[in-house]
Amino acid sequence: MPETTPATPAFEFDRAVALTPHPEEAGRYDGELGDGWQIGGGVNGGLLLAFAARALALEAGPGHPHPLTVSGTYISASRPGPATVRTEIVRRGRSLATGSAVLSQGGTERLRVTAAFTDLAGLDGEVATTALPPALPAPEQCVGVEHAPRELLSQAALLERLDLRLDPATIGWALGRPSKEGRIQGWFRLADGRPADPLSLLLTADALPPVTFDLGRPGWAPTIELTVHLRALPADGWLRVSHATRNVAGGYFEEDCEIWDENGRLVAQSRQLAMVPRA
Amino acid sequence: MPETTPATPAFEFDRAVALTPHPEEAGRYDGELGDGWQIGGGVNGGLLLAFAARALALEAGPGHPHPLTVSGTYISASRPGPATVRTEIVRRGRSLATGSAVLSQGGTERLRVTAAFTDLAGLDGEVATTALPPALPAPEQCVGVEHAPRELLSQAALLERLDLRLDPATIGWALGRPSKEGRIQGWFRLADGRPADPLSLLLTADALPPVTFDLGRPGWAPTIELTVHLRALPADGWLRVSHATRNVAGGYFEEDCEIWDENGRLVAQSRQLAMVPRA
Repeated sequence: MPETTPATPAFEFDRAVALTPHPEEAGRYDGELGDGWQIGGGVNGGLLLAFAARALALEAGPGHPHPLTVSGTYISASRPGPATVRTEIVRRGRSLATGSAVLSQGGTERLRVTAAFTDLAGLDGEVATTALPPALPAPEQCVGVEHAPRELLSQAALLERLDLRLDPATIGWALGRPSKEGRIQGWFRLADGRPADPLSLLLTADALPPVTFDLGRPGWAPTIELTVHLRALPADGWLRVSHATRNVAGGYFEEDCEIWDENGRLVAQSRQLAMVPRA
Repeated sequence: MPETTPATPAFEFDRAVALTPHPEEAGRYDGELGDGWQIGGGVNGGLLLAFAARALALEAGPGHPHPLTVSGTYISASRPGPATVRTEIVRRGRSLATGSAVLSQGGTERLRVTAAFTDLAGLDGEVATTALPPALPAPEQCVGVEHAPRELLSQAALLERLDLRLDPATIGWALGRPSKEGRIQGWFRLADGRPADPLSLLLTADALPPVTFDLGRPGWAPTIELTVHLRALPADGWLRVSHATRNVAGGYFEEDCEIWDENGRLVAQSRQLAMVPRA
């Protein structure tokens, strides 16, 4: 999966995470944060996580091509423009490679990531998952984000990159009637048809509107920390994505996300800590 | 809360995380991993997280005394003996200070941590938590770990440091009858009476037996990654601790833990990714 070919990638996501190894500085990769991935005034946190994780995957090498666990702590908001990732692989074992990365722009740190990589195709075959995927109406009966309220779309170039269809039961907030359940869910695929893979799941884990919208608290919710566990290679097709919060307190909330593929496999789980939007 | 007094701390936990700033190397703290904190062949992962987080708290300074979010990725098993934490604070803002740390022994990396610190006493007072604490029988009706099976106790010096009383409904596994629900819960306090604080909650989040015991899968479950969110200063007294898994698959499982204080406040939430014990 990792590649450093200079040819322009066919899909938007791969162009967004395109990286060039620095000719002199070992472990350093340079790229560009595109202006099509912004939401709420900054570049999407999941896209940033993928950008840094890709650099680490390149540095880890072909024996450990997929992220297994990726933890990111956000330092300052990223902007479209050049970005640098400095990586350090600290261990290459038989099954796992582990390393850390710092994503910076113009000398200012944006994100620190530590991650473990493996070959998800080589995992033990047992699946004893007891969690159940969310029941959703068919994609055609869900609501595409093009129907989102203007205040959501105007700062959300990101949404043009996605084919996101939200469960009508969880978008009352878009009509001024938040359910107050604290859950938003729907179907997800990339708008240009790129198949999902473990790297793109990092974006998916942070692609839905902040769950606080469903609590009647509009506005953007800056991410402090985001950890994603990649548990299987996703099958082609639609992903079911559901995120929820149960602990809005002290000005922060946790947002738990689950991503399921068309085979009913729970392919990724994530949790972020974010700041409650300012009233 | 952070202190570097050379006097021997009164409580075991504080002795376990005692650190001395290195006289020459800025950001470096040295300490000792005591042999009373081992479980399953290595030093407890929560204790290691607290050890590294304390070093970061000392480096961050008195304006940001409490961890808010701590993410650790485990590199190699730690052993009793000298340990060094090298810290780097990358941002000190008005509400948050953020930094990374590497815990090593004898030049070998054990754990990488990135964390954000704040003053939890200064959080917004709103509490809109919808999660509910676990219903538990009174502590006197729960089962102390001294009743644990021998194979659990023999490798678990850690348990002597804790006053852990498990809900009888979740310890069938100790009698050869695992419930298969994938949940273990009970009451927690430190055995020597030290009051809980955000730092000790890092230990608490990894103090219960691996939830895989309740799935009929005995044995130790090495932690790959552990993230803890500290959401409030805990009240004095007993903590209710409950952890569960819903996604045993591919040789890994996630373990979600919630810690509640006597005021019914959800003071910490954590998730770890661990390896399923080998049959």
